[in-house]
Amino acid sequence: MLSPDLIEEGSDVLVYIDPRRKWVTRVVKGKVFGSDRGTFRMDDVIGKPFGTSVNTSMNVRAYVLKPLLIDYIERGFERRTQVIYPKDAGFIALILGIGPGSRVLEAGIGSGFMCSVIANIVRPNGKVYAYEIRPEFAEIARKNLARLGLDKYVEIKIRDLREGVDEKDLDAAILDLPDPWDVLDVVYRALKPSAPAVFFLPTVSQVEKLLEAIERHGGFVDARCFEILLREYQLVRGAIRPHTTMVGHTGYIMFVRKVLKD
Amino acid sequence: MLSPDLIEEGSDVLVYIDPRRKWVTRVVKGKVFGSDRGTFRMDDVIGKPFGTSVNTSMNVRAYVLKPLLIDYIERGFERRTQVIYPKDAGFIALILGIGPGSRVLEAGIGSGFMCSVIANIVRPNGKVYAYEIRPEFAEIARKNLARLGLDKYVEIKIRDLREGVDEKDLDAAILDLPDPWDVLDVVYRALKPSAPAVFFLPTVSQVEKLLEAIERHGGFVDARCFEILLREYQLVRGAIRPHTTMVGHTGYIMFVRKVLKD
Amino acid sequence: MLSPDLIEEGSDVLVYIDPRRKWVTRVVKGKVFGSDRGTFRMDDVIGKPFGTSVNTSMNVRAYVLKPLLIDYIERGFERRTQVIYPKDAGFIALILGIGPGSRVLEAGIGSGFMCSVIANIVRPNGKVYAYEIRPEFAEIARKNLARLGLDKYVEIKIRDLREGVDEKDLDAAILDLPDPWDVLDVVYRALKPSAPAVFFLPTVSQVEKLLEAIERHGGFVDARCFEILLREYQLVRGAIRPHTTMVGHTGYIMFVRKVLKD
Amino acid sequence: MLSPDLIEEGSDVLVYIDPRRKWVTRVVKGKVFGSDRGTFRMDDVIGKPFGTSVNTSMNVRAYVLKPLLIDYIERGFERRTQVIYPKDAGFIALILGIGPGSRVLEAGIGSGFMCSVIANIVRPNGKVYAYEIRPEFAEIARKNLARLGLDKYVEIKIRDLREGVDEKDLDAAILDLPDPWDVLDVVYRALKPSAPAVFFLPTVSQVEKLLEAIERHGGFVDARCFEILLREYQLVRGAIRPHTTMVGHTGYIMFVRKVLKD
Repeated sequence: MLSPDLIEEGSDVLVYIDPRRKWVTRVVKGKVFGSDRGTFRMDDVIGKPFGTSVNTSMNVRAYVLKPLLIDYIERGFERRTQVIYPKDAGFIALILGIGPGSRVLEAGIGSGFMCSVIANIVRPNGKVYAYEIRPEFAEIARKNLARLGLDKYVEIKIRDLREGVDEKDLDAAILDLPDPWDVLDVVYRALKPSAPAVFFLPTVSQVEKLLEAIERHGGFVDARCFEILLREYQLVRGAIRPHTTMVGHTGYIMFVRKVLKD
Repeated sequence: MLSPDLIEEGSDVLVYIDPRRKWVTRVVKGKVFGSDRGTFRMDDVIGKPFGTSVNTSMNVRAYVLKPLLIDYIERGFERRTQVIYPKDAGFIALILGIGPGSRVLEAGIGSGFMCSVIANIVRPNGKVYAYEIRPEFAEIARKNLARLGLDKYVEIKIRDLREGVDEKDLDAAILDLPDPWDVLDVVYRALKPSAPAVFFLPTVSQVEKLLEAIERHGGFVDARCFEILLREYQLVRGAIRPHTTMVGHTGYIMFVRKVLKD
Repeated sequence: MLSPDLIEEGSDVLVYIDPRRKWVTRVVKGKVFGSDRGTFRMDDVIGKPFGTSVNTSMNVRAYVLKPLLIDYIERGFERRTQVIYPKDAGFIALILGIGPGSRVLEAGIGSGFMCSVIANIVRPNGKVYAYEIRPEFAEIARKNLARLGLDKYVEIKIRDLREGVDEKDLDAAILDLPDPWDVLDVVYRALKPSAPAVFFLPTVSQVEKLLEAIERHGGFVDARCFEILLREYQLVRGAIRPHTTMVGHTGYIMFVRKVLKD
Repeated sequence: MLSPDLIEEGSDVLVYIDPRRKWVTRVVKGKVFGSDRGTFRMDDVIGKPFGTSVNTSMNVRAYVLKPLLIDYIERGFERRTQVIYPKDAGFIALILGIGPGSRVLEAGIGSGFMCSVIANIVRPNGKVYAYEIRPEFAEIARKNLARLGLDKYVEIKIRDLREGVDEKDLDAAILDLPDPWDVLDVVYRALKPSAPAVFFLPTVSQVEKLLEAIERHGGFVDARCFEILLREYQLVRGAIRPHTTMVGHTGYIMFVRKVLKD
């Protein structure tokens, strides 16, 4: 994403052969790129512009593209946890109202997918404060963010959110935690008045429990809950149709805004 | 969005009473805010922080919040055209891979909803080049963008995209046009190699026709087509359920990437 | 549905002009059929076969068809209550495993839509035993069923299901009640061992509460829960697309089977 | 389905252990039923009522139920082809307006799933006339129908529908063919005036092509097109949520009615 426009030693590239054959990989001098559609020498693309193509050893055309954020998310990142999908991440970023300069609370960071989407938007002068209780996930997220050059916009803290947040007057919060009702007041105190928080919840039982906690807490209004379904289509001329299987559920997106209590 | 943290004369505010009673309005000294749940004097909130509340003349609590981008889109903007909905806009912004500094082609701008989402992300040093053939829509979009302070990141040109684009080496393109097959080559020439373009298409017949044109053109790969369904839930404790009616369709989101031709 | 093949005085007909102009009506000698696309004299179609057409006074073609069950459900029935939609009714009838001869418990009957679907399948030697607490709905259902000639396959009882069921060894049960957890044991005792029951529940909170009651009761296994979304398409050549608005939610379909307790 | 109420030698049973462990099998004297949750001797359930239970060798409770039609479709039938799913079959049966006594055209029969749903409804005095070009599928369908005792309500003809239909004045037609535009007039001539036909089409490109053929033919009105999405929920108390993956697409359901041509 932050790579130059010419492919260099060390550049991340997206190699595209066909819809089922796409890989994010790093260009290394002397290395051979291999696939079930043949190989090519990476040296042959160094110095060429992104968007170029080469023929593989099996005479199949391979395109060498600059990876987009979505490519990292779909196939470039290391993942160990459930992740927030692009269909949800784009919508969440939008309803959080963030932009360059925003200061955002995140917990937990997981593999860093949602974090990378937010960090990309708040840079260069904004920041994500990411609380994560499991050090091994914090480490994966850090590596994923570093690969994108986004790590400098994120401050990862290995800490249970229930112990409190160091920051104040944050512009937005995104919480991907199993028990968000336990941290409602911590989130409340970290946010600027009027700022939004989004909770990502896999089960509708959690939605019901969180709704109850929100009403009991009293410092939030405009509670909304969304669910996003994404269908991808098979683009074959004369035979256009949705894919046979789809992701039927990831999670519920619950939104609130902080208000001042009397 | 760019308003200060204290409510002032001239601030845009979101007045929130309940899920069906939300308005984006401007604070004017001496003015009375009226609703079917009673009135309050705007003077009573001037100087208070966003997130404050007042009681209306009918003794109903009204919260006065700082509007988010989504509030402008949902209820603050003037609209004359079909618009790209938030469910689609967030996902499109994500797959376009844009961030602060990106230079983006848009056509047509319509009421400026999608444009405001992109402009908010590419600022301060990026730019949206928006081509729009209908001067009256360009004018509405300009007003909507100005209200958000985002107009300085957008250059609107009242011109048919078929006549060509002045810019080169753009990072991404978003096309919301009825006949995108007519401008494929114009879009191709405006984009940086490897850059993505997204087409927003209301009918599947257009998807089929555009796919044919893309294959004939030859300068694009990785064609994908998505459709997003958003369900919002009624959040009543003990009676949680999706809303009875929903938006069943807005448009198909078609994605491609430019590659170099031989 | 049970009408003869020639249109007669007293026949129900579906008048079809275009997708938005469809009516179920009764043929009466001397009567004029009127619409915003003109009128025609019903006498002109008496004695003609179903499937015939006439020109209206505005020279628009009107087709006179034999109504299907779905036409009665969509536009022929009187309705006073929330109804089970065709998308749900067809699936429920299928998973109940009913056929000609089945004896089925229903509560509550509402406007009789679901009942008509089941009665149509279990005839001529099966029966629906329909319990309904509100006499005014029982009366509407009775009229709707009579219009289809299906009333003789339904025995409507104006009684609270909690007071018990007269029948035993029933083949299936369909319950459209707000508090089904109160009648679980009544349903259990009315069913044949191994027979299925389906509960139709508008909210997911009810699903959670019923699931708890089912587990506590212990006489049911194979609990499943389904939700059906139906999209209808606009069929305009060159502009095929889903309708803009759709029914986003009707209810959850919960299925169980009775087993013998130790 | 037509089995007696006591489990006998030769009865089909549904063995239910948990949501992932369900099998349709035949009871044979002396045989042992085996699973990864242990075994039981079939002799132990012979003579017991359906709905009984036994403990397996691993002391897990297994319920022995009478299979419903849906159980045969989901796990009892041999299948070699793409099949019409229950979510679609129930809705199609409903919009076809069929009931006991209906005479229905079907092509092609595939593995006989849709056919079994229709045959179950039209019996005892109705009939399905099923045209199938591939003898091996006809044979599978015949076996599947025989297992349910439904074969006597179906007449299978191994013939290309384009060669014509022997029957006349049929009440409804269901066509699951790749090129239905080729048989439109054959279907038209086989149907009773005013009768409905449903086409099941995997791709939207076929919908567009069939729509064109229908308009050119001129003998059909009220063309409608539907798509059904089914979500199943995971029923775990305190953690209710839709399944993570779902069937995202099976086919489009296109409906028309025959009218008399001038």
